[in-house]
Amino acid sequence: MRIAQIAPLTEAVPPPLYGGTERVISWLTEELVELGHDVSLFASGDSITAARLEPMWPRSLRLDGTVRDPNALHMAMIEQVFRRASQFDIMHFHLDYYAFSLMSRQATPFVTTLHGRLDLPEHHPVFATFPSVPLVSISNAQRRPIPTANWVATVHHGLPENLLRPQPARPSYLAFLGRISPEKRVDAAIRIAQRCGLPLKIAAKVDRADADYFNEVIRPLLEAPGVEFIGEIGDDRKKVFLSGAIALLVPIDWPEPFGLVMIEAMACGLPVVAFNRGSVAEIVEDGVTGFIVEDETSAVGAVHEVASLSRSAIRTRFEQRFTARRMAQDYLDLYRRLIDGAKPRPRLASF
Amino acid sequence: MRIAQIAPLTEAVPPPLYGGTERVISWLTEELVELGHDVSLFASGDSITAARLEPMWPRSLRLDGTVRDPNALHMAMIEQVFRRASQFDIMHFHLDYYAFSLMSRQATPFVTTLHGRLDLPEHHPVFATFPSVPLVSISNAQRRPIPTANWVATVHHGLPENLLRPQPARPSYLAFLGRISPEKRVDAAIRIAQRCGLPLKIAAKVDRADADYFNEVIRPLLEAPGVEFIGEIGDDRKKVFLSGAIALLVPIDWPEPFGLVMIEAMACGLPVVAFNRGSVAEIVEDGVTGFIVEDETSAVGAVHEVASLSRSAIRTRFEQRFTARRMAQDYLDLYRRLIDGAKPRPRLASF
Repeated sequence: MRIAQIAPLTEAVPPPLYGGTERVISWLTEELVELGHDVSLFASGDSITAARLEPMWPRSLRLDGTVRDPNALHMAMIEQVFRRASQFDIMHFHLDYYAFSLMSRQATPFVTTLHGRLDLPEHHPVFATFPSVPLVSISNAQRRPIPTANWVATVHHGLPENLLRPQPARPSYLAFLGRISPEKRVDAAIRIAQRCGLPLKIAAKVDRADADYFNEVIRPLLEAPGVEFIGEIGDDRKKVFLSGAIALLVPIDWPEPFGLVMIEAMACGLPVVAFNRGSVAEIVEDGVTGFIVEDETSAVGAVHEVASLSRSAIRTRFEQRFTARRMAQDYLDLYRRLIDGAKPRPRLASF
Repeated sequence: MRIAQIAPLTEAVPPPLYGGTERVISWLTEELVELGHDVSLFASGDSITAARLEPMWPRSLRLDGTVRDPNALHMAMIEQVFRRASQFDIMHFHLDYYAFSLMSRQATPFVTTLHGRLDLPEHHPVFATFPSVPLVSISNAQRRPIPTANWVATVHHGLPENLLRPQPARPSYLAFLGRISPEKRVDAAIRIAQRCGLPLKIAAKVDRADADYFNEVIRPLLEAPGVEFIGEIGDDRKKVFLSGAIALLVPIDWPEPFGLVMIEAMACGLPVVAFNRGSVAEIVEDGVTGFIVEDETSAVGAVHEVASLSRSAIRTRFEQRFTARRMAQDYLDLYRRLIDGAKPRPRLASF
């Protein structure tokens, strides 16, 4: 199959560190190549792929301080893809709604995976304007605010099977992994760890937008005994960090559309204790790969129960449900459906 | 003529206070209606116009704190305009490059006025991708970074003839009007005024993005004797403010594509002393409506000369060159050229 993947230019594919969307696009792209498909990746020129890279700008925009107006480049990219549409059997966009208008006016089947939250007021007019554009959600929960859009599949994210594996370790602390921002609630994680009488290690990025929040609200909490802040980590340190933990705390306070950190934990056999928001109930199997809790009190109770879970069973569930291979196969099934649906159908004899 | 004006949703048309692009769109729209044309204005619902308002979102986005992703609404707006394109003779966009791809694929003539600077690196791939999309510059200087684009006209902005008129006053201070930001160089204006031994009144907005710059760099300078900061002002106070000044100081340090403040001064008969950057040499007539200077020293010299200029001659030049009526007529000439150019031409007999 001739497949175009069209990525944001914000981060390289894959990104050097944090950057959920571009990491998922990379994993999907590499699996599709591995499965024998002819894949073109439209992305920043510092991307690294076994697919055919179509560089749309030399450097990822987060690193390129000279670009003030990223959308200029994204709009030019969409035009470039449009002009080459006939070279592909399917085009897979990861650019929110930007390609909807233009791609609705050409013949190659296309689909868009929405990677973000959809509960903002401005989303309603967009999806009402484009009721027939085919969309993929990354969880069923993500769809809730826009139930009437043309959802053609939910495809949960997946990780390369061997990216993260359980490492030998004696679990001794609770873990928080991700980004420091108000909706990720690292403050709740600190309180839960304190109430459990366990140390907490925090591996997290602080975006510039969250610097004030970090300095004013979170930094004082890091002084508490047993709390350790280790900054942003890559995959190498991540598997050690996750394997050495008793549980991953995910006390989120927003409708997270997926939550890669939960499947990263599972890949290392680590139980997840997560608040019941957004996609959590689709990802965590309560009592198997972790516990779904409603508040800090029930989180404390759940931490006391995680020793009863089998870390090897958690890894097995990861392999069954959340590998990049499974994700790629789900997308291939969808691509075939869309391609078949777009073919001119043989006319029935009219009566 | 059936004309569509398509405005950004950022500010109402016209905006309550600052907001250059939307003010110009408003003046153009109202003049076109006045001249008897059938005008539809695609804009935020809190816009006020004698044209047919097509509200694309209830409130301007700067005031609507609930919208985090303004482009969602702009992309939906462009799709709505596309679907109605056949209802218009000409469509005039004020949305940068966003409509280029889509509108290139329909039959109604369209044109885009570029309101911003074009010297950023990301502009090259955009305009290289769309070499035949018709563009209007708001000064010849604005075109310089992208000389190969399809420029079909330069149309200087204009003000409604009676919006600002000279008021009786005995000029007694130098004036700075606009926005506090590093490239507007209010610090240079303060030094020039001090070297001239004249008071400086500063009527300016401070954007949130410039709050640190204002507090750290500019606020201490406002303590100096003779410097008065009066904040943001509307048109009523503006004509009094400008009429009472000896000269307007425009010590800009960036390639300003137009600079409305200069023609606002001229409308009040106020001489302009402006640095030779961007559009300045097209707007200020050296020795007639003001002086074009190269640095602070030559600005000080020019201030000493402004008494030799005739304030009524400045007002006359404003009426000849920078009214909204003149702007509307320039645009109508252009619309007619584009409509005639788009008509299928009668074929010549072939030899």
